[in-house]
Amino acid sequence: MPEKTIISIGGNAIIKRNGAGTIAEQFENIQAACAGIARLALDGYRIIVTHGNGPIVGNIVLQNEAAKDILPPMPLYICDADSEGGLGFTIQQAVYNELRKVRSAAECAAVITQVAVDPDDPAFKNPSKPIGPFYAKEEAASLAASCGWVMADDSGRGWRRVVPSPRPVRVIEAGVVERLAASGVIVIAAGGGGVPVVEAADGTLRGIDAVIDKDYATSLLARQTGAGLFVNLTQVDMVYMDFGRPGQKGLPELNVENAKRYLAKGQFHPGSMGPKIESAIEFLESGGQEVIITSPELMGDALKGRAGTRIFK
Amino acid sequence: MPEKTIISIGGNAIIKRNGAGTIAEQFENIQAACAGIARLALDGYRIIVTHGNGPIVGNIVLQNEAAKDILPPMPLYICDADSEGGLGFTIQQAVYNELRKVRSAAECAAVITQVAVDPDDPAFKNPSKPIGPFYAKEEAASLAASCGWVMADDSGRGWRRVVPSPRPVRVIEAGVVERLAASGVIVIAAGGGGVPVVEAADGTLRGIDAVIDKDYATSLLARQTGAGLFVNLTQVDMVYMDFGRPGQKGLPELNVENAKRYLAKGQFHPGSMGPKIESAIEFLESGGQEVIITSPELMGDALKGRAGTRIFK
Repeated sequence: MPEKTIISIGGNAIIKRNGAGTIAEQFENIQAACAGIARLALDGYRIIVTHGNGPIVGNIVLQNEAAKDILPPMPLYICDADSEGGLGFTIQQAVYNELRKVRSAAECAAVITQVAVDPDDPAFKNPSKPIGPFYAKEEAASLAASCGWVMADDSGRGWRRVVPSPRPVRVIEAGVVERLAASGVIVIAAGGGGVPVVEAADGTLRGIDAVIDKDYATSLLARQTGAGLFVNLTQVDMVYMDFGRPGQKGLPELNVENAKRYLAKGQFHPGSMGPKIESAIEFLESGGQEVIITSPELMGDALKGRAGTRIFK
Repeated sequence: MPEKTIISIGGNAIIKRNGAGTIAEQFENIQAACAGIARLALDGYRIIVTHGNGPIVGNIVLQNEAAKDILPPMPLYICDADSEGGLGFTIQQAVYNELRKVRSAAECAAVITQVAVDPDDPAFKNPSKPIGPFYAKEEAASLAASCGWVMADDSGRGWRRVVPSPRPVRVIEAGVVERLAASGVIVIAAGGGGVPVVEAADGTLRGIDAVIDKDYATSLLARQTGAGLFVNLTQVDMVYMDFGRPGQKGLPELNVENAKRYLAKGQFHPGSMGPKIESAIEFLESGGQEVIITSPELMGDALKGRAGTRIFK
């Protein structure tokens, strides 16, 4: 069993496409993941939890836009930080409650996380990260015209606003996160990929408008904190070849070589499974031991080799 | 010099009444406090920072209301958590930048904080905590009618929405905050008084709609973490007798006995200086050594006895 484990919860697993988006639903949707996390902590795993914020930060942006006649809309990086607070609290409380149910006195805390990016990252000229709700094509065109948003088709599931998604370079608070996790605290960090910041020559930081992909941020945080196992929780039970097509084929195991080969063949969609596979490769090639991709419900089984996809070197 | 120090930044000092409320202004308004905090850290103080969120959580509620036709408004406790994220990030980055300026490698991290309250607290039947912007009397009456909000006059400065403000009973993450601070990390915690939660018989928590006064939450967190010094930063340079009236008189020093006497005489307004004095008394009567009330700009001088009000036992 690897000492330090990083577990990532997908943003689209927190607010589901067809749900109303209420907080009661969000608590319901994360329950399985948090129950699994509490049990792993009891088994001695040292756990860092990351999470997506795609649908939530989009909602916060919409709320800022809706009130713009009375209040100055906050920049996107503040909306990112707000979502780290709201979702961090939600996961923190859900894990706390699951710990109480199994009579554990373990602690859980969400740490607000800044993540440095390169201001010259090409992503700033080519927005690609979907945030917020899904729209019909005509609605999307009208929003592009009225708000100046860039809209794109999200994996064939509908149209969404897309924002720059630069590669994370350094998690600023990684040291604090590592020491807390090493002391046995379940730490929630790099929520929504973290708050994107750029570093000036004098070492000072400032926020920049973007949303960092949480899979890349998780892989980076795993490397900075020396985590050996990276569990990526998503909406599918495992990784598939020819996903969504007749004859799709589940992959219980995948080595880095094949992962790269399938990725190059376009097997994994750039907006969903692609970043999960790429971040898994990054993690394994820089010292990580094992990656598991599965759904929250199957996490326990996947760790015992009975479900999910195991990726290794 | 007391080993562990808690420093509280007032919400109305972060978004000022006559400002536009932009993020640039918020950074500007907290700069003096964060510069002072960075220098105290260099001098060896172990620092926990708390902050108010009054104007900010009110803005988040307004943004939720403005978008309610397209998105379900989040409960007030989620708005509290969002504000812990946004403000926690802002203060965390400002402190980080001030540390870099003085060539310190010290770390700073904001921890999302839940604070347990009593569900039978009388405050739930008597909302008294002002949040959000100021309104003219007529506007306030119209909002009370249309949104069901309770509105009240805030210290004669205008009308605001008031929400329940129960007394904090226990800071759930105090252990994590204490150990981080003891290790030399500047910890931001209990932002906006923390996210109010109630504890069920089985020990599980759930959020409840309220805003906890950050002065009481700070005093409680100081007691739970064993802080000796409590520095309360506000918009006035010191505590005054007959504040705002002709002949007002500044108090460089105040003992607990006199503080109680003046409080009983109604010298300190229940919505502003009152909770600062009450929380100072609470802190000093339960083992705290010293309280300083002053403005961010004068913190350094106040700690040397050259400004502000020093309250002692």
